[in-house]
Amino acid sequence: MKSIGRHVLIEFWGCNKNINDPDIVAQSINDAVEAVGATIINLHVHTFTPFGVTGLAVLAESHFSIHSWPEHGYLAADVFTCGTAVDPQAAVPVLRRFFVPKHVEVRELQRGIIREVI
Amino acid sequence: MKSIGRHVLIEFWGCNKNINDPDIVAQSINDAVEAVGATIINLHVHTFTPFGVTGLAVLAESHFSIHSWPEHGYLAADVFTCGTAVDPQAAVPVLRRFFVPKHVEVRELQRGIIREVI
Repeated sequence: MKSIGRHVLIEFWGCNKNINDPDIVAQSINDAVEAVGATIINLHVHTFTPFGVTGLAVLAESHFSIHSWPEHGYLAADVFTCGTAVDPQAAVPVLRRFFVPKHVEVRELQRGIIREVI
Repeated sequence: MKSIGRHVLIEFWGCNKNINDPDIVAQSINDAVEAVGATIINLHVHTFTPFGVTGLAVLAESHFSIHSWPEHGYLAADVFTCGTAVDPQAAVPVLRRFFVPKHVEVRELQRGIIREVI
């Protein structure tokens, strides 16, 4: 079944303190996007008060997002890519190295499934 | 089952030409985020050559994204929110009015499911 995009949804629990550091979140996105083989067009990182970080990158191949809730030790990341030259799953081990989660869940969904009519 | 966030994934097929207009995509995000009851912190819209638009908004409640592939009449939107004061599903009718899709698929996923240990 062909699709326009691949969307990897990542849930990290029991993360270290890096999930509350905007510079480290930005670096993790840069490194993960490089591993995926994608290209960042724009990156915006926002720090919430009293805690929590969002990093959101427009990619040439769609988008990459991180949201963290340090009070829960939880981080959600999304890697949405199109094209066959990239592998969104390659982000997972990179993010694991940055945030050292105790528990990891990864789902992959197809976006824009192309149904061939015979 | 409690979760930290709600993530609504929207697929539109057979859209009108508005999906290739960056100003209309930006306006659709503004209007949809208002309907959801959320707040935009940052919005970045990128126009691809020869066609295709990405709009990506950091929300106080997580993020909102639109990617379009006018060559397929296809648009993918994501509404990821946290908190109980917002309704991410409220984005769907707003986006329908802007892009008039012939076929719509909407999925809702829980992000950060909190498992209560008894």
